[in-house]
Amino acid sequence: MPHRTVFFVSDGTGITAETFGNSILAQFPTQPRHVRRPFIDSIEKARQVVDEINRTFEREGKRPIVFATLVNEAVRDTLQADDCKGLVMDMFRTFVEPLEAEFGVKSNHRVGRFSDVSKSHEYTERIEAINFALAHDDGQSARNLDIADVILVGVSRSGKTPTSLYLAMQHGIKAANYPLIPEDFERNELPSSLAPYKPKCFGLTIDPARLAQIRHERRPGSRYAALENCRQEVRDAEAMMRRAGIPWLSSTHKSIEEIATTILRDIQPERLVY
Amino acid sequence: MPHRTVFFVSDGTGITAETFGNSILAQFPTQPRHVRRPFIDSIEKARQVVDEINRTFEREGKRPIVFATLVNEAVRDTLQADDCKGLVMDMFRTFVEPLEAEFGVKSNHRVGRFSDVSKSHEYTERIEAINFALAHDDGQSARNLDIADVILVGVSRSGKTPTSLYLAMQHGIKAANYPLIPEDFERNELPSSLAPYKPKCFGLTIDPARLAQIRHERRPGSRYAALENCRQEVRDAEAMMRRAGIPWLSSTHKSIEEIATTILRDIQPERLVY
Repeated sequence: MPHRTVFFVSDGTGITAETFGNSILAQFPTQPRHVRRPFIDSIEKARQVVDEINRTFEREGKRPIVFATLVNEAVRDTLQADDCKGLVMDMFRTFVEPLEAEFGVKSNHRVGRFSDVSKSHEYTERIEAINFALAHDDGQSARNLDIADVILVGVSRSGKTPTSLYLAMQHGIKAANYPLIPEDFERNELPSSLAPYKPKCFGLTIDPARLAQIRHERRPGSRYAALENCRQEVRDAEAMMRRAGIPWLSSTHKSIEEIATTILRDIQPERLVY
Repeated sequence: MPHRTVFFVSDGTGITAETFGNSILAQFPTQPRHVRRPFIDSIEKARQVVDEINRTFEREGKRPIVFATLVNEAVRDTLQADDCKGLVMDMFRTFVEPLEAEFGVKSNHRVGRFSDVSKSHEYTERIEAINFALAHDDGQSARNLDIADVILVGVSRSGKTPTSLYLAMQHGIKAANYPLIPEDFERNELPSSLAPYKPKCFGLTIDPARLAQIRHERRPGSRYAALENCRQEVRDAEAMMRRAGIPWLSSTHKSIEEIATTILRDIQPERLVY
């Protein structure tokens, strides 16, 4: 496929434009060059972006693709002026207009998810959830587990930490994480501090060969990373989760997003019902 | 505004549907009930969602709004069947088809951003970046600062940690963070370990009153949290960053997303040029 440039143009951060644009582009076997143009909140700035799009078109001989999330109509019109050589995918115009008809009200042209974060309850919850995940990483603290929405369990390096941070950052979910270690397997029961909270426990497991590879990067040649040891730990952890009736999944071939989504679907924390 | 239910329906995690849907809904003064239906990858599952949408319509007397990211056409057609009572916003059909025409190729109907994460270079980089942020949080380690993409500096609780985790999670950017502490202000210069890396340093500052509030939640009544102390630290930190020629912004009214976007725009780490 020929070389292409993709612009993400937004009056806010452009995260929405980029997330959405990337999932559309993933449908094609193309590796376009990305150009991000956030905070385009005036006609003048939009005009500069159009000039840049047109220069790109002249240079490459191919229409740049433009994913736009622009709330202000005058700014939007500037980007979609007749002389703009880009193929503009306007995500707002396409979907906001039918909703205005359905709701019977005009949209309020608000830019961004949080107009002023210092006043947003939802935002404060996300930051608190990130702090909670950091304070309860790797079984550091058994305090406040009662206010956790989710407690992730699994052997060391099975993916608990990134998953709990993602749950916090994306969903404002307070996720503690608790490693299952050889001492737990010897005692043959869940860490006692988890016992009262079994309904919000969720397990992560991982293919032993992949685990050994990840651990080798951290501590090359250690017993901790040895394949035989990884096999034993994974086997013991899975047996323990099965006995305790804790739902679990394998993180081996899953992204953090997929793991987090599955956990939320299965645990259904109360906080998410909003 | 009357009560509404919004469905996010996806054959993957639904993160794209939800991110995009929320930014559209933010244009309206509505607080709809959210229903997430991820992993809808068969006609049968789609049919169940349609039944659920229709029951919701019967109960509420208002059309549910449906944000859909479904790659498979048969699944998509099921959701958009004539008997579906929802207002379906089909994000794929709307934008993929014009791109097929522009590129002159058919889309490959790939579900999700990562088809198998264990093989994805981009995904591995994100996980490595998260581990890097954790290992280099709060000036814990001055090792490997040479491989950092960004080094965030600022007084304690100015927003460095969530920002560095977000940069890692969303963009795969390796961000270290380094607190500016009273000892640095007494010596009147940047921590020496940062000196070689000034071009990738970025400062965060914060309104002293807001800082005092945040610190009081952590350590109520401490000198650390006292407004006068916060004022002094912020004043000293801003003076130091100005003298060192480090770009900085105030996190007081900005979300993590906005802070991260501004940093990337200003620092332009090489890693982002892909």
